[in-house]
Amino acid sequence: MRANLPIDETGLWDDLMALAALTDADRPWTRRAFSPMFLEGRAFVAERMRDAGLAVRIDTAGNLIGRREGRTEDAKTIVIGSHSDTVPDGGRFDGTAGVMAGIAVARSLTRHGAKLDHAFEVIDCLAEEVSIFGLSCIGSRAIAGQLSEEQLTRSEPTGEILAAAIDRMGGDVDELDTAKRDDIAAYLEMHIEQGPVLQDERRDIGIVTAIAGITRIEIVIEGRADHAGTTPMTLRQDALVGAAAAVSVIAKDARRRAAAGHGHFVATVGEFRIEPNAANVVPSRVTLLLDARAEERGFLQGFVEELRPLLTRAMSGTATRISEFRILSDALPALSDPRLLDVLEDASGALGLTTHWMASGAGHDMAWFSRIAPSAMIFIPSKDGRSHTPDEWSEPGEIAAGAAVLYEAVLRLDKALA
Amino acid sequence: MRANLPIDETGLWDDLMALAALTDADRPWTRRAFSPMFLEGRAFVAERMRDAGLAVRIDTAGNLIGRREGRTEDAKTIVIGSHSDTVPDGGRFDGTAGVMAGIAVARSLTRHGAKLDHAFEVIDCLAEEVSIFGLSCIGSRAIAGQLSEEQLTRSEPTGEILAAAIDRMGGDVDELDTAKRDDIAAYLEMHIEQGPVLQDERRDIGIVTAIAGITRIEIVIEGRADHAGTTPMTLRQDALVGAAAAVSVIAKDARRRAAAGHGHFVATVGEFRIEPNAANVVPSRVTLLLDARAEERGFLQGFVEELRPLLTRAMSGTATRISEFRILSDALPALSDPRLLDVLEDASGALGLTTHWMASGAGHDMAWFSRIAPSAMIFIPSKDGRSHTPDEWSEPGEIAAGAAVLYEAVLRLDKALA
Repeated sequence: MRANLPIDETGLWDDLMALAALTDADRPWTRRAFSPMFLEGRAFVAERMRDAGLAVRIDTAGNLIGRREGRTEDAKTIVIGSHSDTVPDGGRFDGTAGVMAGIAVARSLTRHGAKLDHAFEVIDCLAEEVSIFGLSCIGSRAIAGQLSEEQLTRSEPTGEILAAAIDRMGGDVDELDTAKRDDIAAYLEMHIEQGPVLQDERRDIGIVTAIAGITRIEIVIEGRADHAGTTPMTLRQDALVGAAAAVSVIAKDARRRAAAGHGHFVATVGEFRIEPNAANVVPSRVTLLLDARAEERGFLQGFVEELRPLLTRAMSGTATRISEFRILSDALPALSDPRLLDVLEDASGALGLTTHWMASGAGHDMAWFSRIAPSAMIFIPSKDGRSHTPDEWSEPGEIAAGAAVLYEAVLRLDKALA
Repeated sequence: MRANLPIDETGLWDDLMALAALTDADRPWTRRAFSPMFLEGRAFVAERMRDAGLAVRIDTAGNLIGRREGRTEDAKTIVIGSHSDTVPDGGRFDGTAGVMAGIAVARSLTRHGAKLDHAFEVIDCLAEEVSIFGLSCIGSRAIAGQLSEEQLTRSEPTGEILAAAIDRMGGDVDELDTAKRDDIAAYLEMHIEQGPVLQDERRDIGIVTAIAGITRIEIVIEGRADHAGTTPMTLRQDALVGAAAAVSVIAKDARRRAAAGHGHFVATVGEFRIEPNAANVVPSRVTLLLDARAEERGFLQGFVEELRPLLTRAMSGTATRISEFRILSDALPALSDPRLLDVLEDASGALGLTTHWMASGAGHDMAWFSRIAPSAMIFIPSKDGRSHTPDEWSEPGEIAAGAAVLYEAVLRLDKALA
């Protein structure tokens, strides 16, 4: 890694830690979208934007935007985005590292007296994490014109609807259409990897080729509730035994597919509920939620198509059956723009940083921006791949390196793009 | 099945249905121990006892006892017992069939002018089902002198302690020692099978050789929480995948042991909880509760001793480990008295009823009486083996047949016993 980066590493780190310190006191690190603490965080981000020479506004969708005009009238905008909200009991880097890196880029542009033809913006997208409204990427959906009327009327547990909450964040839902953008020349996002690959491969920068598509499937396995003391083993229809066979074969099949050379592929049973869940009753029913992600759409479709017969075979002999097999959601992969990827690779190389081309298994605001503009992402290493936990960690130098790649890429894109 | 039984089949059935009708209105059939509805049920049982010629009292442990004196002074007592409390959302037969059968026997004794040398009692044991105090068989434990000081101070969710609740049921915990019995010549209990064996074997009466010992083991399987989208399949430590391997091998091993010719053996994972149980997080931890029951103590011990290495082998390759393996409870099998079993077999045969000798996988009050007196049980068929559900069902004729076996057995025991 190069020592002399065009980024104020210490300033960036200090800003990031100061933002992280704005946490719900009883459970660090928590700054949930729409909460009072979130607004405190936003006020800090806005102040740092202003300090970096950016003009600050909140768009009608509640996104916080810091802008620097370009020299060319009517030139489009180069955007660096990410988010400042966190999951509950999350870390100090997810999202915030990207926002603060954007601000550090703005500061370097000012310090180095850079004159850009394009306008430049840093966007702190509203509510990227799954929010109390059961929805993620609220701000970036709106920028892509994809926040629906139905979604705007969803309510959280105390009854507030999303539209009202966006207004409370400084938005103006009556004028939501004006948040939709058609002036973005390029969208860049830096994010922590949230996985162990860069650490394991000892690379500085992940060049993110795509955000994996995500298919979620609810599977219900039915057996029969019987007395656990009195029902002979041969007469049971134990739904947990059926579900165990299903979980085992899903893991085995996913390992096989992940090794098949079709890019990123993972499948996880993360939610699993048994009924009646009593010590002396043979389980009658298991509901499990399968989350499958793939870089290649066709490869994911193949997995889903072959899954049910695979499970049925694995469960044969358990006297249980699949009573429900329902695709709950099915998001397409989002591809990075190849030209932007080349610029990010070149920028990394110029800085003496090593790269690894990879897909993102997690969703990001970039997926929504990619619908309306050339977009791309980079990853920086996550210690042991830990994320969404207080253990989340990236080194100050790793974050500064990512910000430096963004800085170099912005300079190159300003010249290369119309 | 013989048509002409020495029991008033219709009267017994009507009594049983009248008792069942005393249920919490919103969730039939529910008459939880210590509830107001339980006291209503008890009042009805007491009235039916009196009607059958029994003198009614409540002992200091809160057991409801109907007694008929014998001709021989100082002769011991022949007891028929079971319980009138139910599980939540239970059936109309579990426990109550045995109590009402005992009362029907008393009525037949009176009607036939039988003169017994022994005293005869019907005992409605307090709180056989696991109660709000987290304890089962409260009344029969006390009769066996096994209700501990610690247990008496346990409290239920609203704060009442067990000792106060027993007093509220008509008991007198200050004099609890007097509930302990040393005058029982024989204890008999009729219960629904709660399993499908008698139905499948087309037999009228189960001659219960033993109540299986029950060992409950809590097993915790640890993996590591990782992002389900970003963590490659090869780098995961998925606790659910480890637990699935464990559940499968437990079921397989239990089927093998159940077929090995060592009497009743079952093993069930009935409680199963995963953490964090979120769609996008690789499961970090699974806690499962294993309930294993066997007629032969040594056979159960062998299962428990070989279990941990068996699980470790099955989980190898899943990168998960067993972090806890804790025996939560370990109840010895309770053996029926062989002489009583022969009497029950003879009584069945004399009535033209077919029998099947079997162990009970479920616990019963008999297990506690067997510590202080010769004891034995019979089962009557349960439709499809269903129990602890509103579907619970036994035919009027099946219940009357069981009561008739008790009646014949009481007459024979009165002659045979000292």
